[in-house]
Amino acid sequence: MKDMTSISKTNCSELALLARKFNCFYLSGLRQGICKPFLVAGHQVGLIRPDVLKYLRTFPEVFRITGEYVELNPAFRNYQERTSKVAEVLQNLRKENEICALKGWRDECFEVSTPFHHESLLEMDRSAVCLFGIRNYGISVNGYLFHPSKGLCIWLQQRSFTKQTWPGKWDCFVSGGLAVGFGILETAIKEVAEEASVVGELVKKLVPAGCVSFYFESERGLFPNTEYVYDLELPSEFVPKNADGEVETFELLTAEECVQRALTPQFKTTGAPVLLDFLIRRGYINPENEPNYRHIVELLHVPLQTIYNSSLRDITSNGDVQNSES
Amino acid sequence: MKDMTSISKTNCSELALLARKFNCFYLSGLRQGICKPFLVAGHQVGLIRPDVLKYLRTFPEVFRITGEYVELNPAFRNYQERTSKVAEVLQNLRKENEICALKGWRDECFEVSTPFHHESLLEMDRSAVCLFGIRNYGISVNGYLFHPSKGLCIWLQQRSFTKQTWPGKWDCFVSGGLAVGFGILETAIKEVAEEASVVGELVKKLVPAGCVSFYFESERGLFPNTEYVYDLELPSEFVPKNADGEVETFELLTAEECVQRALTPQFKTTGAPVLLDFLIRRGYINPENEPNYRHIVELLHVPLQTIYNSSLRDITSNGDVQNSES
Repeated sequence: MKDMTSISKTNCSELALLARKFNCFYLSGLRQGICKPFLVAGHQVGLIRPDVLKYLRTFPEVFRITGEYVELNPAFRNYQERTSKVAEVLQNLRKENEICALKGWRDECFEVSTPFHHESLLEMDRSAVCLFGIRNYGISVNGYLFHPSKGLCIWLQQRSFTKQTWPGKWDCFVSGGLAVGFGILETAIKEVAEEASVVGELVKKLVPAGCVSFYFESERGLFPNTEYVYDLELPSEFVPKNADGEVETFELLTAEECVQRALTPQFKTTGAPVLLDFLIRRGYINPENEPNYRHIVELLHVPLQTIYNSSLRDITSNGDVQNSES
Repeated sequence: MKDMTSISKTNCSELALLARKFNCFYLSGLRQGICKPFLVAGHQVGLIRPDVLKYLRTFPEVFRITGEYVELNPAFRNYQERTSKVAEVLQNLRKENEICALKGWRDECFEVSTPFHHESLLEMDRSAVCLFGIRNYGISVNGYLFHPSKGLCIWLQQRSFTKQTWPGKWDCFVSGGLAVGFGILETAIKEVAEEASVVGELVKKLVPAGCVSFYFESERGLFPNTEYVYDLELPSEFVPKNADGEVETFELLTAEECVQRALTPQFKTTGAPVLLDFLIRRGYINPENEPNYRHIVELLHVPLQTIYNSSLRDITSNGDVQNSES
């Protein structure tokens, strides 16, 4: 993983600049040498920034910190023990009220697992996942229709102003994180009902359409995100209605208006990949109108599933850690 | 770029194994240390294997070979000069008749350009591109229809038994390389006419749908391929008819039959990515029926546009070559 910021930004299209923005951490080369690999049971599952490391140092019985990496105490033998030990640390840190990300505590747990064989290692509150650079999975739904005169139109949502993350920002139709105990399609069905009141026969029209992967960084933390994407063609008379208080409003836009909205600071940066992927799959963004087309398609699918394996081998080759996957 | 073969193959689904097969060179970590970067005008544009290197050594006035890399003589100042000098070497090698890839000489030129700003550097015969590991671009078309009882059905072609590469193998509906002087959509339109007699109003139904990128290796050479993908919904009464002698036959298969065909040795390995991408975008392969879904989606979009930049920086950091892109 090398620093790729050397690619000149001159002549980048606006959409390519956006794709670079939601991949700012990927394109930095994962800030090699600055963040430390986070290991659980011999597997690298994340990366930890120096600003988080300083808090973890105060829990040496839970986190073993070397010059090379951070390891969850290998004496914790199973899912439950790892989960409760990490939860204790997080609750302590939360009380100190110094870490921005933990102010958005969710009481909703995400699973930490090995990348390829999906071995479950532990779970932790959704708000903490970005502190450890843990791969984050969610679902996103493109709600769209073909308007007789306007052509392809897409429903966007404006997030509630009371949300902890990205309040008031525009986002794709529906999205949600994969919480422990919920399947992927099951989450999509749950979220379209809660966020947009899509129920009954309409739900059956959800079509899985791939996934997008990108690696974003903000002040809050690190976001190696994979979104499972669903397309949902909606009847022209359907008007989405929020049921869980997480949405401010919905708006139906033409494809061109969507592109323009996505390029404004009012759009949630990490919501843009799903929208761009949809507009590419539907031919609206295409090789004839987008000079950086290939580059953008690649930046919608960065190799998150192998990105940490690669670093783990680096450590292994120093003889420090055994790679239990080889 | 690290060796990623360490990911265990145990429990890989059949489709994931196929995705690994057409990415055998990517997953080998680009055989780091074995192949040499190929530089033109300060840009890395390819990789050269030892079996090719031994032939290039006999042309020291054209190729400068160091311990670290191979460079096209920087004294060649422009596109035309580079093109003619390389063509001379290739014609010489072709006469010797020892290099397998050159036996498939095409008299059709592919362009070699810088990855991001698409600066044209030179052109060379299509058959030679794999000897230098140069990025290779083409178009592929998914011809499909919705059958009232069988659901999603897809037209596949069997390649002519007289073709130099992959004779008699099954492949997606239509595909073709991007030759110098032809646009992307233009190539798609030309190929559907020549290979399947799709003309007139039907052509207007070509919908661009993204691209797939993978890095395959065979005895012939290295294939860092990007295919621009188009979808074409065909009327049920349409029967493709070959017009250029490059197709043996066409067959209409259900989605399930396509998957089974793609898993046989009778399917062109490098045709599989386009088919898998289509079946994923249409929801036939989905997170509920494919355990390695995320991994496969990533292996359909490996980062070819940045893969060589990364290596170039390695060289630069040794002080050997100036990175003219930074």
